[in-house]
Amino acid sequence: MDNQAFQLHPIGVIHNPGDRAWIEIASPFRPAMDGLSAFSHIHVLFWFHENDLPEVRSTLQVHPCRNPANPLTGVFATHSPMRPNLIGLSFCRIQAIEDRIIRIEEIDARDGTPLLDIKGYWPYETPPPIRYPNWTRP
Amino acid sequence: MDNQAFQLHPIGVIHNPGDRAWIEIASPFRPAMDGLSAFSHIHVLFWFHENDLPEVRSTLQVHPCRNPANPLTGVFATHSPMRPNLIGLSFCRIQAIEDRIIRIEEIDARDGTPLLDIKGYWPYETPPPIRYPNWTRP
Repeated sequence: MDNQAFQLHPIGVIHNPGDRAWIEIASPFRPAMDGLSAFSHIHVLFWFHENDLPEVRSTLQVHPCRNPANPLTGVFATHSPMRPNLIGLSFCRIQAIEDRIIRIEEIDARDGTPLLDIKGYWPYETPPPIRYPNWTRP
Repeated sequence: MDNQAFQLHPIGVIHNPGDRAWIEIASPFRPAMDGLSAFSHIHVLFWFHENDLPEVRSTLQVHPCRNPANPLTGVFATHSPMRPNLIGLSFCRIQAIEDRIIRIEEIDARDGTPLLDIKGYWPYETPPPIRYPNWTRP
């Protein structure tokens, strides 16, 4: 298993200069956007490109939210940008779609982040309770 | 942008023989699981390994749920396993964690699927309405 490798290629760019945020889909992938307008929300998958270094990808535990008061926690329990496979996942509300641009309310990704994938969102059907630790509450 | 490539490596395997499902984390990544037991639900990211072919990765539109009655739709609106970057995303309830095994209720991934990432889940805070098309309703 250790020798297996899979290749990703960016399909666009996330723009997030501060006061607004939008996703720009690269021209060849424009047809893959058809039908997105039926959704109010999307999952956005992106690459933590600034962290693509062996020492970051071998980080397995972090203090969540970079707060030393939070207990040292395995990265699979967190949304840390330091993890073996540098995939980020954000849940975003769509404001508008204009050709190859998807305007979104906000996103937890740096300006210039490579886009990997978008998936239309529909609510999860799961019986309560949903349980999660206190450090996830801001 | 077209020449950029990012490398993924499997961090485990998804077992889904039919009557039950579990995730096996590879030994080197065991420390990244610490803290997962505080969560009832996880997001599981995996690789659609059976689809890693140029002709599948260039598929940009599908009939959702492989139902020709559903309108031809861009793959970014769907959860289709045919897409440029073959990342699957499932929302799973944890049943039990036993060393490197995470037992889950069910998962929409084939037996033997390479695991890419796990992220602890906490509920999204978003004001209604949430809008999505009819074909997402089974």
